[in-house]
Amino acid sequence: MDQDLQTRLLNAVDALFDREVAFLSALTAHPSTRGHEQSAQDFMAGALAERGLEVDRWQIEVDKIRDLPGFSPVIGDYEDAVNVVGSHRSITRKGRSLILNGHIDVVPAGPLDMWDSPPFEPHVDDGWLYGRGAGDMKAGLVSNLFALDALRHLNLAPAADVFYQSVVEEECTGNGALACLERGYRAEAALIPEPFEEKLVSAQLGVIWAQVHLKGLPTHVAYAGSGANAIEAVIPLIAALHGLEERWNAPGCRHGEYAHAHHPINLNIGRIEGGDWASSVPAWCVFDMRIAIYPGQDIDAAKAQIEEVLMAAARENAFLKNSLPEIVWHGFLAEGYALSDDTSATAKAAIGILDAAHLAVNDRALDRMAITATTDARFFGLYADTPALVYGPRAEAIHGFNERVELESLRRITKSTALFIANWCGIETI
Amino acid sequence: MDQDLQTRLLNAVDALFDREVAFLSALTAHPSTRGHEQSAQDFMAGALAERGLEVDRWQIEVDKIRDLPGFSPVIGDYEDAVNVVGSHRSITRKGRSLILNGHIDVVPAGPLDMWDSPPFEPHVDDGWLYGRGAGDMKAGLVSNLFALDALRHLNLAPAADVFYQSVVEEECTGNGALACLERGYRAEAALIPEPFEEKLVSAQLGVIWAQVHLKGLPTHVAYAGSGANAIEAVIPLIAALHGLEERWNAPGCRHGEYAHAHHPINLNIGRIEGGDWASSVPAWCVFDMRIAIYPGQDIDAAKAQIEEVLMAAARENAFLKNSLPEIVWHGFLAEGYALSDDTSATAKAAIGILDAAHLAVNDRALDRMAITATTDARFFGLYADTPALVYGPRAEAIHGFNERVELESLRRITKSTALFIANWCGIETI
Repeated sequence: MDQDLQTRLLNAVDALFDREVAFLSALTAHPSTRGHEQSAQDFMAGALAERGLEVDRWQIEVDKIRDLPGFSPVIGDYEDAVNVVGSHRSITRKGRSLILNGHIDVVPAGPLDMWDSPPFEPHVDDGWLYGRGAGDMKAGLVSNLFALDALRHLNLAPAADVFYQSVVEEECTGNGALACLERGYRAEAALIPEPFEEKLVSAQLGVIWAQVHLKGLPTHVAYAGSGANAIEAVIPLIAALHGLEERWNAPGCRHGEYAHAHHPINLNIGRIEGGDWASSVPAWCVFDMRIAIYPGQDIDAAKAQIEEVLMAAARENAFLKNSLPEIVWHGFLAEGYALSDDTSATAKAAIGILDAAHLAVNDRALDRMAITATTDARFFGLYADTPALVYGPRAEAIHGFNERVELESLRRITKSTALFIANWCGIETI
Repeated sequence: MDQDLQTRLLNAVDALFDREVAFLSALTAHPSTRGHEQSAQDFMAGALAERGLEVDRWQIEVDKIRDLPGFSPVIGDYEDAVNVVGSHRSITRKGRSLILNGHIDVVPAGPLDMWDSPPFEPHVDDGWLYGRGAGDMKAGLVSNLFALDALRHLNLAPAADVFYQSVVEEECTGNGALACLERGYRAEAALIPEPFEEKLVSAQLGVIWAQVHLKGLPTHVAYAGSGANAIEAVIPLIAALHGLEERWNAPGCRHGEYAHAHHPINLNIGRIEGGDWASSVPAWCVFDMRIAIYPGQDIDAAKAQIEEVLMAAARENAFLKNSLPEIVWHGFLAEGYALSDDTSATAKAAIGILDAAHLAVNDRALDRMAITATTDARFFGLYADTPALVYGPRAEAIHGFNERVELESLRRITKSTALFIANWCGIETI
């Protein structure tokens, strides 16, 4: 790219940046938790249509993706699970095609009284935009969009097909991204601006969710032995799972990208509910767990190990041995993915172009980062032979309270993205 | 009482027994969990009115009982908390007055799939009547009523005022019985047919409920240290409470009635709820606990000890020490009560008459039992100087699944109760 075009593109991002922040604020105001993404997707579909993209909007059908690799068992139905894709069809088609992917779903806000201001009433303070989902990852959806806008502002467009994706289900299954694959969307690279500190994600972990159900025979507490309490029976199971977590963190188990990580595999007991009445011995308890796995670690083997430690602990428990827990696998059964393992020429080219774009904007090299979470990148990388670059702005407290994204970081990512698109796809005049 | 009258009374109970079982079945079909007692109370008020009793039906007003001894802090409002009392006014008033007390509220059914048949569709099988509340304590409400019916069947009535009480709130506060005291209902003795194996309850424990709230600052699990999880932070608190439970069970702490009991003080963690999302580190968790105290043990001192062990454990916990738990006292703050400590002539007389009635029906002496639960007896015994006899039928799985009451036991209790009424109150002809 000539220096002049580069400068004009960066200036265009600056020129549009107030609008970009306003757009992010408006998008963050949609409380698009799982099952409630519709208004946010309406907003996105409208924005894509306004820009002249060809809008495809469809409800995910489980039957169409159930047998595909990477599918995760579903929580609830998909009546409200709607993906939106806006397609730019190049006239010249002289460059390389690209998927710009982001997820519209956000995790629950948690207790409102722990937020300094309401989670779905975004506001800007001291250079940060606050709100649930602002960082994870509505800022990324917005940087993808306004990078395209910067080209359009100069009467330019990518010289290859670009598919702008706003997907659901990233936070619990990834089935939104999988449904895009099933619908036929393919490109030579994918960019996903998840909020990882303006670094290129070289590897991501897989994630497994399980729901563990405990049941037993309770009675009036007056006759209770302490061993017959379904809530307390959870305690040795959690301890056993932490044992597995430690074994998976041991040096011999690790993927090379995580050789020096502090504690890459984290177990989380994320939800619990049990019992009906303070004076009735609880007969039931259910907890939701999340644990990570390495790239290359087999999902079925990992599930078997989880089941094995839970059942072994249950068999040693006076209450549980007669009433073994039931493990329900729904939600993530996600493999790990390492971009750094992709030695293809396409991957090298895409990474090289992103390196250059980052350098041009920041005047320093693009760092790599092996993250301890998952993203939708795995679908492109593992199941569509498409290198997936995860590269997004700096955010804080994602999944926590007072989640926020740094606006100057968003500006830089938008700029790098605009340069990446121009160099990867090439440009044509509108 | 002459032998002839005794025989005629016992026969009258037999003659009415099919109707009694049908009545119990109809009453058990009302799902009178806390806040939903209205239809059951309608049913009771109707039955009392049919029998010519003067029916008093009123909503509990918290402001009227808040400052009375024995009051427990309230869960929710009392819009639907309605007591029913049917008064028999004696013409001759030559005997001793009596309160026949029972509670209409039942504890939650718990997961329906753990019941062999629906909890509020009572049925009789092999001499037992099944259903939530059948034993605890609708059978007792019914035995009280049909004991009076047996007299009426012979054109007799008690020769003293009898107040038949169907109260709410026994299972969480006792404020229903307290409201009866506040409304002015007094008598020389009280009978409460709680389901304790046809034994006379010589002592009962007090009960304290507390709700413990934990909060903290969570984040995405990818960055979680295990010390920052509100659900797991519950574990050391439960352990600390079990430590207190063991100290209270130590020989030196015990009331004499519990000197040889196996494990009189039971801690129960009865409910738990925490977290919002499997992949978010839980920021909050709430659990409900119940623990017992001995007769004579001071409520405020017990509360202080509970608070002390919880806070000491919290201060040793990396997560909790910066965010100490909040303890909410709502529900039971109930003192223990020992009928055996009541050395009054009235108590001796009442016990003697019940002993004789039981012997006449069963041909063996009435056993005593120190129970490890609480009942509304404490209000009469501690706050109204009225000996309260807890004596009711054999039931199983109260607060559990497939709760049931033995029908022949109900028949015997109804008979003993009829004899007790006739001898305590005396009789007059209608």
